[in-house]
Parts: sequence; C-alpha cells; structure tokens
Amino acid sequence: MPHLTFLEKLCSCSDRHRSLLCVGLDPQLELMPQIVTSGPNPLLRFNREIIEATSDLVCAFKMNIAFYLAHGSEGWTALEETIGLIPSRIPTILDAKFGDIGNTSRMYARTAFETLAVDAVTVNPYLGGDAVAPFLDYEGKCTFVLCLTSNQGAADFQAVGADGTPLYQQVARKAVEWSRTGTCGLVVGATHADSLKLIRSIAPDLPFLVPGIGVQGGDLHAVLRDAVGDARAPVAVNVSRSVIYASSGSDFALAAREAAEELRQCTEAVL
Amino acid sequence: MPHLTFLEKLCSCSDRHRSLLCVGLDPQLELMPQIVTSGPNPLLRFNREIIEATSDLVCAFKMNIAFYLAHGSEGWTALEETIGLIPSRIPTILDAKFGDIGNTSRMYARTAFETLAVDAVTVNPYLGGDAVAPFLDYEGKCTFVLCLTSNQGAADFQAVGADGTPLYQQVARKAVEWSRTGTCGLVVGATHADSLKLIRSIAPDLPFLVPGIGVQGGDLHAVLRDAVGDARAPVAVNVSRSVIYASSGSDFALAAREAAEELRQCTEAVL
Repeated sequence: MPHLTFLEKLCSCSDRHRSLLCVGLDPQLELMPQIVTSGPNPLLRFNREIIEATSDLVCAFKMNIAFYLAHGSEGWTALEETIGLIPSRIPTILDAKFGDIGNTSRMYARTAFETLAVDAVTVNPYLGGDAVAPFLDYEGKCTFVLCLTSNQGAADFQAVGADGTPLYQQVARKAVEWSRTGTCGLVVGATHADSLKLIRSIAPDLPFLVPGIGVQGGDLHAVLRDAVGDARAPVAVNVSRSVIYASSGSDFALAAREAAEELRQCTEAVL
Repeated sequence: MPHLTFLEKLCSCSDRHRSLLCVGLDPQLELMPQIVTSGPNPLLRFNREIIEATSDLVCAFKMNIAFYLAHGSEGWTALEETIGLIPSRIPTILDAKFGDIGNTSRMYARTAFETLAVDAVTVNPYLGGDAVAPFLDYEGKCTFVLCLTSNQGAADFQAVGADGTPLYQQVARKAVEWSRTGTCGLVVGATHADSLKLIRSIAPDLPFLVPGIGVQGGDLHAVLRDAVGDARAPVAVNVSRSVIYASSGSDFALAAREAAEELRQCTEAVL
C-alpha cells in the first residue's frame, strides 16, 4: 500500500464510508461496562471493541491523550496499542492540544508523528507561529489548530476582540498563513453555528475538526453544511461520549455501532 | 514531616537555599554527555546526577513533559522515577501547558496531581476558566497559567490588544479572579522586562514562574526585582539548558552545579 497523507486517508475514508464521523476513543473507567473493567487491560479491550464495531462507519479516529496519561505508563501503552489496532487506511488524530516554545515544540511534534506515528495532531495557538512551525515540518501529516472551542470558557479569551476582530478569527487568519508551509487545519466547536460559517469564509480550504455535536438531526445538518462550505473542504465531526458510552451494558459495542450509524447517516446527507 | 503545600515548600526552599532558581530537568539525548547516553536508562541517570549536584541550590525543580513523552512509555517511567528522586521538601513543577474542556481537563489535573503527584503544573489559558477550574480544585497545589511567554511567537496573539488591553494582560486579570478559588500563578517570560513590571502590578500577590533567563548579571537582577514586586510575592526563575548542559563532558554534574551556583547568587541579591 502506498504511503498516504492524512488528507488522502481522510478523503478516501469519507468517500468509501460515506461518512464525516470521527469517533473519539476517550476511555473512562467509570463510564465503561463492568464486563470490560473487571478484566485486565480495560482501556485497550474497550477500544478494540469500539474500533471493530465502528471502523466501517468513520472517516477517522481521534484519541485524546488526557484519558491515557491519567493512567501513567499503563495508559501510554494502551494508547500505543490502540493506535496499532486502527487499520492503517483510517486516519488517526492525536488530540493533545500541544503548545510550547520552539525546541520543546519539536519534542511534541516528534511525540505525535514519530513516537506515536499518528496522522494528525491538535495544537494550541496561544504561543504563536514558532510553536506551531515544528509540527508543519512533517510532510503528509496535519496540524489542527484550536480556533473556537465548544466549551463555555471559549468566551473568556477566544471571543474577545482586538479592533473588532475576536481572537478566534485572528487565529483562523494566521492558520491560513501557516498552511502555506504545511498542512494545517482548524478545530471549530459545533456549538457556535454562526461563527462556524464565518470561520469557513476566512479559511475556505482548510480541513476542520468539529467537536461538540450531539445527536440532533436538523441542527447537525446545518452545522455540517456550514463546516463543509462551498469549497467542499475536508471535515471530520468528532463524537466521543454519545457513541462510545451509548450503552453501559454488555451490548456496548453494538450500541456504539448503532449510535455511530445514526450519526454517519446525518453526515452522509451533506456529502 | 507534615504535608506541605506548594507555596510552603517553595518559600521554605527559597529561604533555606537563599535561592529563586528553579532548575529545569529537560533531558535531551543529543545534548547529554556520552558517558551517560552510552549506558542504560540515560534520562534517569542524567537527571539523578543533576538533582544531586544542584538540590541544595534551588527553590524548585521543573520537568517539561515533552522531553519525556517523546520517548514513549520508557520516557514516562523516567519521568515518574525522576519525580521520585527529588527530595520531598523541594517543590516539583510539571511543565505541561495542559488545556482542554472540563471533563478532559479533570483527567489532566488527575495526571499531574495524582498520577505524577507533582506540586504544581503549568496550564494554557486559551480555553478559558472552565478549563483551568479542575486544577484549582486540588488544595495545596499550584496552577501556573501561561501569561506572556518568552518566545518570538508571543507577539502573534498574546501581545494583541482588545480595547487597548493585550491578551496577556486579560489573562493576568482573569488569573487574579481564578486565584480566589485555588492557588494560581503566572508564567511570565523574562524576555519582556517592561511587561513583567506591568503584570506584577496587575497581580501583586501571585507566584510567578519566570523562564527565558540566561546568565546575564545586571539584567537578571532588574528582572528579578520586577518579578518579586513590592509585595515580595513568590518567584521561581527557571533555567534549563544553561545549567544542565553547562558541560557535555564527564564533568557535567559539577559544571551544572557551578552554573546553578552562579545563578543562585544573582537571585540571592534580590531576597
């Protein structure tokens, strides 16, 4: 198989699976079925079942590193092994929101793209361009820059304007600049429908990673249309909890599949 | 020994060692002496020598997680073991620049304060107050919020103003608010002497973690005076590379001690 870039993998999985759904593999012991937590290596066993149950329905898988680091070196091993379980044709996104000064940023980029060998990573823009640059040096990978997040706290700084331009729009503009030196995307929460359209107009071609969606038919459709935009740019809509914890019983994998299929169908309508 | 808070440990080490110097344990194989890298477990062996050579000269040790994650689970184990080597009377700071939405942020807080059991952590403010809150819930710990970083990229967003107030000043003000619910500090790069004074006036009582200092006698003294401020708030000046890589020969530990002692003396003048 030829060595595919993140964008090639994402588009090919989107097309083949008729899906914009990215499933978030964020294992939390207290939310997992007892049948999994009572045995050894619960994080990996849970992820394996979810991956097998949903891999023909997704355009990508995303792992948030926090849910693994909290378990120390065992968690790290589970993260490595989870990434190893994902079929290589499906793109992997490490959600780590890394951000540090130049030489440290290089270590983070190495962590994501060499040590863990994922296809894409999320980064935090607060430290500016030189903190993002080391990630962009990796050809074929994608660096998703946090733009507008889905939480309430987004109002504290992201929505505050300089000369009438809120921070998140300044970030979107910079990311367009940065994307000239490497593949750059944006993280845009689905909870800000109006802003999504605006950000798409600033960055018509950039891939978007869109978290913050529940199972809400109509709204989801509008959000997706705005995210995809006129240029039909690549989009991955991330859903974690409402898929992977759809059931806390022994049928959790089947329930996850059903939840994922419902979401996939919503996204198919936009494709 | 009674269970001391971060601030108690910091003040007690500062007083006892007459020092504001925090040594950054950021092991990079390519910068370490061959005598260390040629043997097993080089990260831990390097750190052990540095800790033993400098622990009576510092007010704290800081570990930047990037330099460990890049080595995968071996790196994680080296990080845990390094923290275990640091005498419990010396406060430990995990430099991770964590930042994520609420439930994920709780996992990061658990990683820092339970899994690794450090005394303080650095966080990124981009996601706002609800991303910082889970860290503040840990009594006796300290959460250092990135305010103004020492790199060039700080100009991209941190220095951009809304209604004449640059982002880093908005962050400093919010951190003062947040500090009412838990111990909160600020990361302020020493490369912005004027801003340091201004930030100290916004946050007269908050502990500062100050990176970005080289061995520059006079300037360092002025920077330190501004950082400490009139309220004589706690300050830790972090130096990594110019201490731990002072020599790349077999005398590296002694050279690190000499570099640390020179810096300690500079900081003593302010105490």
